[in-house]
Order: sequence, then C-alpha cells, then structure tokens
Amino acid sequence: MPSKHTLTHFDTELESIRKRLLEMGGLVAQQLSRAIEALSSGDMATIEAVIEDDRRVNEEEVALDDACILLIARHGPTAGDLRMVMTMIQMITDLERVGDEAKKIAKAGRQIIGSDVVFVPKVELRHVAAMVIDMLQRALDAFARMDPSSSADIARQDKEVDAIFKGIMRQLITYMMEDPRLITRALDVLFIAKSIERIGDHAKNVSEYVVYMVRGRDVRHEGIEALERESRVR
Amino acid sequence: MPSKHTLTHFDTELESIRKRLLEMGGLVAQQLSRAIEALSSGDMATIEAVIEDDRRVNEEEVALDDACILLIARHGPTAGDLRMVMTMIQMITDLERVGDEAKKIAKAGRQIIGSDVVFVPKVELRHVAAMVIDMLQRALDAFARMDPSSSADIARQDKEVDAIFKGIMRQLITYMMEDPRLITRALDVLFIAKSIERIGDHAKNVSEYVVYMVRGRDVRHEGIEALERESRVR
Repeated sequence: MPSKHTLTHFDTELESIRKRLLEMGGLVAQQLSRAIEALSSGDMATIEAVIEDDRRVNEEEVALDDACILLIARHGPTAGDLRMVMTMIQMITDLERVGDEAKKIAKAGRQIIGSDVVFVPKVELRHVAAMVIDMLQRALDAFARMDPSSSADIARQDKEVDAIFKGIMRQLITYMMEDPRLITRALDVLFIAKSIERIGDHAKNVSEYVVYMVRGRDVRHEGIEALERESRVR
Repeated sequence: MPSKHTLTHFDTELESIRKRLLEMGGLVAQQLSRAIEALSSGDMATIEAVIEDDRRVNEEEVALDDACILLIARHGPTAGDLRMVMTMIQMITDLERVGDEAKKIAKAGRQIIGSDVVFVPKVELRHVAAMVIDMLQRALDAFARMDPSSSADIARQDKEVDAIFKGIMRQLITYMMEDPRLITRALDVLFIAKSIERIGDHAKNVSEYVVYMVRGRDVRHEGIEALERESRVR
C-alpha cells in the first residue's frame, strides 16, 4: 500500500509529464501550421526551421518515454493511474509521428517552392490542414480535461479529411493528365496531402486513447457508433 | 519485494504474451506476403481474405495491449522486466500498423487487378516486399532471442528499401508521362510501394526497441552509428 507521501510524488510527477506532453502536442501542431504557412508564402527560412525543429520533437519523445517508464517503475500505478500513464505513452508515439509528417511536408515544400509550380491547390491544403490542426487541438484538449465527449466528432472530422484528400488527389490527377511534365511536382503535393491526412489519423488515435483513459474501454477499431456511446455524458 | 510465487506468475504471463506477440508478427508478415502474391497472380479471393483478416490483427492488438497493462498492474515490474513489457507495448502498435498497410496494399491491389493495367512493376514490388519481410522477420527474431546484433543491418536495409522506393517512383513517373491515362492506376501502384516502404520503417522501429530492451538505451533518432555501437557483442 503506497504511503500518502508516495501518492503525492506520483501526482506531481504525473502532472509534470502531462504538462510536457501537452506542450509537445502544441509544438507539433505549430510545426504543421508553420509548414503549411511557408508552403503558401514560399518562405524558405521557415521551411528549414520546421525541418530543423523536428529534432526537438524527437528529443522530447525519448525524454517523455523515459519519464513515463520511470514513473511506472517508481510507483507501480494501477487502475486509472496506470491507464493514464499508458495513454500518455501511446500519445507520445502519435505526436512524434505528427512531427515526422510536418517535417515531410516541409521537405516536399522545399521541392515545390524551388520550382515554378503554379497549380498547388493551396486553398484546399490550407483548409484540410486547418481541419486536422483543429482535430489535434480538440484531442489534446480532451486529454487535458479528461473529457472524451469530442471523440465521435473527431472521428467524423477524420472521415471528412479522408474525403477532402480524395478530392485533392482527383484534382492533381487532372493537372497531371493535362500536363504530364508536372507529374513529379504533383506527386510532391500529393504526398503533402497524404501527410496531412495521416495527421488526422493520429489526432483520431489520441482522442480514442482519451476514451480508453476515462472510460476504461478500448474503442479502437470499433467505429463511430462505439465512440458516440462512450462520449455521452454520464 | 515480490515473492517467488509472484515472480513465477509474472514470468509465465510474460512468456505467454511474448509468444502471442511473435505470432501476431508472423501473421502480419504473412498478410503482406499474401497481398503481394495475390497482386502478382491476380487472385482476388486472397485479396479479399487479406482485407478480412486485418480484423484478427486489430483484435490481437486490443487483447495484447490489455494483457500488458494487466501484467504491469498485477506485478509492478521494474528495470529489465518493465523495459520488456514497454518494448512489447510499442511493438504491438507497430505490428498492427504493418497489418493496416497490408490491408491498404490489398485494397489498392483490388483496383489494379480489376483494371487492364500492364505496367505494374511486379518484379520490383516483389523484391522490395521480400526485403521488408526479411527485415520484419529479423526484427522479430531479434526480439525472440533478445539479441540486438542485427539492428544496424536492419537500419541499412531500411535505407536500401527507401532507395528502391524512389526507383519505383521514378519508373512510375515515366509510365505516367508516356501515357497520362494510366495516372490513376499508377498512383495505386505508388501507394502500394509506399506502404511497403512504411512497413520497412516499422520493422526498423521494432529492431530499435529490441536494442532498448536489451541495452537499456534509446537509440531511436540516433542513426546507424549508435546502432552499430549497441549491436556489437559485449
């Protein structure tokens, strides 16, 4: 039976990791929005900064994983406390991958900005990027407030993002057919859209972990109906 | 201090999870190889079976995650034991994503088989798929034997896979430029190649977790030199 002293230590450490994890979430959301912004404005310095800053995200992944494992080793949490730490460990992985996708977007952006491509569907990319940033922020907010009520909504947004991605792909195919010389650059744009779509998946993952954390039920692979059920106020 | 009784229970449970995890690894490797095989032979029944069987992979992900969390809650492992459980938790996620990619390959394969596409670079796709299956099996084997010595090699294979992917992409761009009507189908092939390339990333992740498990050092993001160092026999 842990002493009250131990419990307090656990809570303090947990709170500190939770705070850093939310900061990491803020950082990767910012990385994405900077990459998309720079793609529109052609600002190469920002592109390079996004690529460079992915290192910070990677370092944070390693440090936070360490902190979570140390927390388990020191305090042997069970039940809700353990679910909370497990949720954080899963979230760290997803947030790091969001950082990776932002870096890939910046790298593809570098190719595009340097060339004379004029057909980049900037409006659509900005629109879908704004959607996944919103999803990510709502998922992080759900984690911060331990409130899974947005999860079904986020899953619905994810379906919408998939549909927009398909629309962008069709548009790019039209461009490529009209002028096959554009194919190489169009594929850079396609991979950017694909990265944004994947970030939507990661945001959905995070929101599903929050359901698990709060409700103790694993709703991955169970569809929007299960999320609807679990996200209702009890 | 846990009793001997508790320790034995822990070891038995750990061994059972370890075995199931290796079976899950075998299953997803098989999913990939069936998807690629069916793409070559045009066997639509296998394509559908791969898509259907992804459900088993998802169920196994949820069940194994549960088992790991229960193991921690019951026994409060520390040090090497805890690292082992953490490694397994990370591996479960990567293996599930390998299953997802195999399913995506099968779905893209369904589009291609149904059409009259003749330019699919079957030899290259089979070659690169065989490479990532080898990487995956070596990584699983490293986990089974708790032997990180293959990790630098696997990281090198991953670089080779990336290079082959770029080659396939260039080849597809040539096809698309020659006959823009092929663009839609060529993109299906491109996404298949991309999925295979991602499976290589997952295999590399698994092999890096094994280094962490055995050496206690987190070598993600540190490059091949760190893997070389840690994979040397001590």
